[in-house]
Amino acid sequence: MSANRRKFLFALIGVHSRFKKCSGPSGLGKIFMKSKITKTRKYRLDMNEKILNSGFKDFQKFFALDNKAYLDGKIPVKYKELMGLVGSMVLRCNDCIFYHLDRCVTEGATREELHEAMNIALIIGGSIVIPHLRYAFEMMEELQRAEGGGQNA
Amino acid sequence: MSANRRKFLFALIGVHSRFKKCSGPSGLGKIFMKSKITKTRKYRLDMNEKILNSGFKDFQKFFALDNKAYLDGKIPVKYKELMGLVGSMVLRCNDCIFYHLDRCVTEGATREELHEAMNIALIIGGSIVIPHLRYAFEMMEELQRAEGGGQNA
Amino acid sequence: MSANRRKFLFALIGVHSRFKKCSGPSGLGKIFMKSKITKTRKYRLDMNEKILNSGFKDFQKFFALDNKAYLDGKIPVKYKELMGLVGSMVLRCNDCIFYHLDRCVTEGATREELHEAMNIALIIGGSIVIPHLRYAFEMMEELQRAEGGGQNA
Amino acid sequence: MSANRRKFLFALIGVHSRFKKCSGPSGLGKIFMKSKITKTRKYRLDMNEKILNSGFKDFQKFFALDNKAYLDGKIPVKYKELMGLVGSMVLRCNDCIFYHLDRCVTEGATREELHEAMNIALIIGGSIVIPHLRYAFEMMEELQRAEGGGQNA
Amino acid sequence: MSANRRKFLFALIGVHSRFKKCSGPSGLGKIFMKSKITKTRKYRLDMNEKILNSGFKDFQKFFALDNKAYLDGKIPVKYKELMGLVGSMVLRCNDCIFYHLDRCVTEGATREELHEAMNIALIIGGSIVIPHLRYAFEMMEELQRAEGGGQNA
Amino acid sequence: MSANRRKFLFALIGVHSRFKKCSGPSGLGKIFMKSKITKTRKYRLDMNEKILNSGFKDFQKFFALDNKAYLDGKIPVKYKELMGLVGSMVLRCNDCIFYHLDRCVTEGATREELHEAMNIALIIGGSIVIPHLRYAFEMMEELQRAEGGGQNA
Repeated sequence: MSANRRKFLFALIGVHSRFKKCSGPSGLGKIFMKSKITKTRKYRLDMNEKILNSGFKDFQKFFALDNKAYLDGKIPVKYKELMGLVGSMVLRCNDCIFYHLDRCVTEGATREELHEAMNIALIIGGSIVIPHLRYAFEMMEELQRAEGGGQNA
Repeated sequence: MSANRRKFLFALIGVHSRFKKCSGPSGLGKIFMKSKITKTRKYRLDMNEKILNSGFKDFQKFFALDNKAYLDGKIPVKYKELMGLVGSMVLRCNDCIFYHLDRCVTEGATREELHEAMNIALIIGGSIVIPHLRYAFEMMEELQRAEGGGQNA
Repeated sequence: MSANRRKFLFALIGVHSRFKKCSGPSGLGKIFMKSKITKTRKYRLDMNEKILNSGFKDFQKFFALDNKAYLDGKIPVKYKELMGLVGSMVLRCNDCIFYHLDRCVTEGATREELHEAMNIALIIGGSIVIPHLRYAFEMMEELQRAEGGGQNA
Repeated sequence: MSANRRKFLFALIGVHSRFKKCSGPSGLGKIFMKSKITKTRKYRLDMNEKILNSGFKDFQKFFALDNKAYLDGKIPVKYKELMGLVGSMVLRCNDCIFYHLDRCVTEGATREELHEAMNIALIIGGSIVIPHLRYAFEMMEELQRAEGGGQNA
Repeated sequence: MSANRRKFLFALIGVHSRFKKCSGPSGLGKIFMKSKITKTRKYRLDMNEKILNSGFKDFQKFFALDNKAYLDGKIPVKYKELMGLVGSMVLRCNDCIFYHLDRCVTEGATREELHEAMNIALIIGGSIVIPHLRYAFEMMEELQRAEGGGQNA
Repeated sequence: MSANRRKFLFALIGVHSRFKKCSGPSGLGKIFMKSKITKTRKYRLDMNEKILNSGFKDFQKFFALDNKAYLDGKIPVKYKELMGLVGSMVLRCNDCIFYHLDRCVTEGATREELHEAMNIALIIGGSIVIPHLRYAFEMMEELQRAEGGGQNA
């Protein structure tokens, strides 16, 4: 695999942004708390790399389209990620919820904004969404703690 | 039913905002184009009134929560409606798509913003969303024409 | 097709129970109101007969299992049909909603019982269920009128 | 948080009813068998408390509506919980299945009634429901054993 | 729009293959029977063209990927279209069912093969798929008649 | 339970074919790699046996229909299993994905054929399918390794 191709794939699976965010923990508790986040991110990263290196080119094209859909446009990236969160919650996919929650926190979404988006998902999707709301709350706390105090500190 | 109660229900089912938006057509073509919109809105209005007047109070409570989820908050109302649109498209519900599209246009969402939101829904939900993308395009055109030229004119 | 086979298939697609229920309208309005019900029942009946006569035997076996699931057992048939209604509403299938609503009314479910079951479906499935709640209300009214006054008269 | 508020939230998340049900194991085997049940209930309890204490009031309102939908009414509570079970199985949500199964057993649903309800869900939802039928069987056994012999003893 | 671009889009929305298939009806009955097919195809065609000409490029890219997924590969195109039919039936999308059924018939799938694929969808998806099985039977008949006698003649 | 009945149930839950496939590992690594596969198969086997021995006969009838849907017919069994894989992926059920992937590998589906089928599922179902694509890739590797080198060696 050429260096250029590898760079493209790395951009696609977000290696740099992912690990930049992981830097700078300031205590043992924080390291422990981040383990679930880190593990979830790593499995995603490893498996995406296998899919993207499988030799089946259209997987790469779909992943590229998926990536591009959330880039800054007429709708700011933060709101696009919140849309991704709502879509993931009403379709009840925990892995997708984690991914978009992670991105929302990175893009500076506050806890209040996350609550409002989660509430839209809860109302659209009903009580069947509640187990995923529980998961979202669990991961939101871990993500905001890992970010260095969170927006509500 | 008391006058107050009626007023509350009317607010809930959005009678005033709906008909205010219908004012001001400027030609026969426009009247014709609006017929599908008007019919869809009217059926929704009539049936909601039956549900809200059925005597089963918790229907009203749920409808009130539903209504409140999209009010202006930390997330501006336009983005909340775009989130409602994404949620409706990935869950593939044409009635819901029409409702949120209608609200998005009222809140000033441009065609480009609608495209970006629809694209997020298409990528999340896949080709099974395409028939609803067709419906969304059909209604988006009618709604923007009915609005008096559209935001892109 | 033998007479016996035909009798089995007719039992399966419920010809007799369906048309017995259609007897005894007492006015022009009632006839008009029943047209939507009759048309929906007839399409279902005709197409089921085509499927069951297609020569592919396992369609018949599945239809027989489907039929049997709602027969009187430890759970009374009325509650089984209400369960069928809840399942149909949360999965958002109007044809299935009509069928189970029709059966619920035949089994003597009152409007209050239908409201409670519909509310469970609304809470489980969220606002995405609302268009189907509207449809259920529309058909519930027609079915109860067609029954000769309804259970709440 | 005031004492009253706390009492309301505790009622909502069912602390008392949950732990009352856990009392009275009569052997080591039973304690071990209950560990999966207890863990599932505890995670649900803890996360619900976080959601209900998040300061976002409409989560509480939705949870209250959810709770109320299954209270005794024209439809007896046991049948409402069986409806909740059917809804949860066709929507394929294990956490929801556990919750309603737990409630059904508490309300005295027998194994035969549970089989009939599960069969309705299997027929409506198809083979995609089978993994959730496996989960339901696993938890049904543990719940009925924990109850002190089960309804079929 | 350049001629080349237009040719690409036309290939994408399948204008030629669609209309070639429509040629050669040999009687009034056949013309009447094809009207539902023609209307469904035309709406699809018209709206796809609007989407593909909307100026939002990523819609085109997704449509191209969608188109490419069903081209001849290690899996022959007929089986790919049968897979598309199964996917459309379990996700309960009539427009998608019509499209893949249309393609299956064009690719020479026999009625028996269609029955077997539909049965897999029915078993996977359960009774909630039945209304879509009815629709599939209705359209299968029309498509095979329009093809000039069908594979079972 | 009679010997015959037991034989029927064993055939249904596929004991022999499952364990035959597990024979012949040639090293410690292979044994370790197969543990996840073995565990997943065993849980499925054990729980199916409980369901089929529950005394509720219609579970057996549904399982038999399910089993029969994938037998060799006009459509070869390999393509039927690939259809089962597509149906499982678009409905996002990991247990079902594992089962059909396992069957596909047994029926000789190559990695290229699996990629093409997975791509159809990805395009139909969208990015919400990606976590299941990751799971499918993980299990596909383990299954093909356990098979003794895989079809692409």
